[in-house]
Amino acid sequence: MPRTAAKSDTAPKASFAARLNAAASETEHLLDRLLGKTLAEGEIARPPRIAEAMRYSSLGGGKRLRPFLTVETAALFGVRREHALMAGAAIELVHCYSLVHDDLPAMDNDDLRRGRPTAHKKFDEATAILAGDGLLTFTFDVLGRPETHPDAEVRIALVTGLARAAGLGGMVGGQMLDLAAEGRFGKNDTPQGEQDVLTLQAMKTGAILKFCCVAGAILGSAPKAKHEAVSRYGQVIGQAFQIADDLLDVEGDAATLGKAAGKDAALGKATLVDLLGVAGARARLDQLVKDAESALAPFGADATTLKEAARFIAERRA
Amino acid sequence: MPRTAAKSDTAPKASFAARLNAAASETEHLLDRLLGKTLAEGEIARPPRIAEAMRYSSLGGGKRLRPFLTVETAALFGVRREHALMAGAAIELVHCYSLVHDDLPAMDNDDLRRGRPTAHKKFDEATAILAGDGLLTFTFDVLGRPETHPDAEVRIALVTGLARAAGLGGMVGGQMLDLAAEGRFGKNDTPQGEQDVLTLQAMKTGAILKFCCVAGAILGSAPKAKHEAVSRYGQVIGQAFQIADDLLDVEGDAATLGKAAGKDAALGKATLVDLLGVAGARARLDQLVKDAESALAPFGADATTLKEAARFIAERRA
Repeated sequence: MPRTAAKSDTAPKASFAARLNAAASETEHLLDRLLGKTLAEGEIARPPRIAEAMRYSSLGGGKRLRPFLTVETAALFGVRREHALMAGAAIELVHCYSLVHDDLPAMDNDDLRRGRPTAHKKFDEATAILAGDGLLTFTFDVLGRPETHPDAEVRIALVTGLARAAGLGGMVGGQMLDLAAEGRFGKNDTPQGEQDVLTLQAMKTGAILKFCCVAGAILGSAPKAKHEAVSRYGQVIGQAFQIADDLLDVEGDAATLGKAAGKDAALGKATLVDLLGVAGARARLDQLVKDAESALAPFGADATTLKEAARFIAERRA
Repeated sequence: MPRTAAKSDTAPKASFAARLNAAASETEHLLDRLLGKTLAEGEIARPPRIAEAMRYSSLGGGKRLRPFLTVETAALFGVRREHALMAGAAIELVHCYSLVHDDLPAMDNDDLRRGRPTAHKKFDEATAILAGDGLLTFTFDVLGRPETHPDAEVRIALVTGLARAAGLGGMVGGQMLDLAAEGRFGKNDTPQGEQDVLTLQAMKTGAILKFCCVAGAILGSAPKAKHEAVSRYGQVIGQAFQIADDLLDVEGDAATLGKAAGKDAALGKATLVDLLGVAGARARLDQLVKDAESALAPFGADATTLKEAARFIAERRA
């Protein structure tokens, strides 16, 4: 997709790439400000090493797809962009914490992330564990602030929704299922069939991606039917994201990905690509993009960017 | 202190021990219900191993001092006991997560906690990391529920306050300073003087203990002066708690403590006991108990239990 310069990141005609890049840049600046301010304004001294590790693990990388989804779904409901960016930044903090902890030696034992040393390689294991804890905790500090939304009911709905998407029934439980799928806790735990793989993925990565979209509806106090429409969209693109990820794991290389490739096969983990084959997985992806577009039908042309996002997620190469 | 049977845990004449035990028992049942319900009611299957690890790490042990402080400060402001218990349970979840992560091999590397194997010994390191993450995340799910308080403004104030007490400027930052005090990151980071030790302790354990008391004031929408009075009380008992802990580390044994003793000396970490001597530390403790009592003066006889709590914290033997 060609990039075009956009005068304003909210201009209706801005290209998809321009809108994605604008949200990424705004998220980067916001996280930088939030993490910097926290360090400077306290009544008691902060240890610089962990502050540096938290900044290292959350700044300077990534497509910021999650905040982008929150910004774009929020735009459907006329939410002020600065509110959507705060909520998006909070979700991104959860995403960054999960990468730090998942990369740990006791977990996935990865040395490389976004082309840079992982946090425990750059610092040390204890610092990485604490930096992850600090990022997760900071998420709820950010969500609780009036800058995120003036209405406390809206802020608490974001807190509850994100805690559930990130917790035992979502990301944390999904990571546990993923470790079980490697046979860590005995063969009995290893998922085998398509439904097991879909459940694992819906929890590990799907729940947060879905919540990114639901967050836009919460911020905009969306009516029930439209809330459900973006929720359905979020669920479908979560599935598409994971199949695209699994295809990249099979077809990609470390230089493009900025992380190790071929890990699933090496660990004997089942993916939809194994179960459906590459062609089958691609066909499933195409269907999911169509499902995402259908889910957005009630919004008409307002949802053009989100429709493009579904295709972007399905076709991404890194 | 003699135990007397209390007909009701809220009876004004119930002994301190009876009130402490009642709050502990109610917290245990509440956590059991909250963690059990979460497992049963989900739309997608939960991995049993991590659910078991979360229950193992938060049920069946501890004095539940933190929920007790929230329940008793909340009682000063006429808060419904079930609301105070929900907030107290949420704080206890943060406390339990911090123990699980602090015990990890990369952190304090402890094998024993409350007389039982630590989570990573009972399960494994990956499960312990994820169980801690799950408990921390679940904290904010619990705080966000209307059962904690009907007013969303109150719930969001609890979210923000606890996130700050637990985060970089509080517990997480304090644990980082504690690791630095062991010389983990080079000698330059090692605190030496009394102010350094006080700062470390105010962050690592003091911030949460103080917040337990502030939470009672938040739940009760306390007027500013009374909010500040319980905040001051909480700060003082946080200091007393840590000095008592340091005295136990010098004088206690593993059988009484349910965890390893003498660790601070072995690691070369400075404590107030090193800096003031045992007699000096005891004198400081006495002063802190008097300060705690003064802070509570505005509440008169209503604060009798909290005054007893200050003495209990200073004189505890385990």
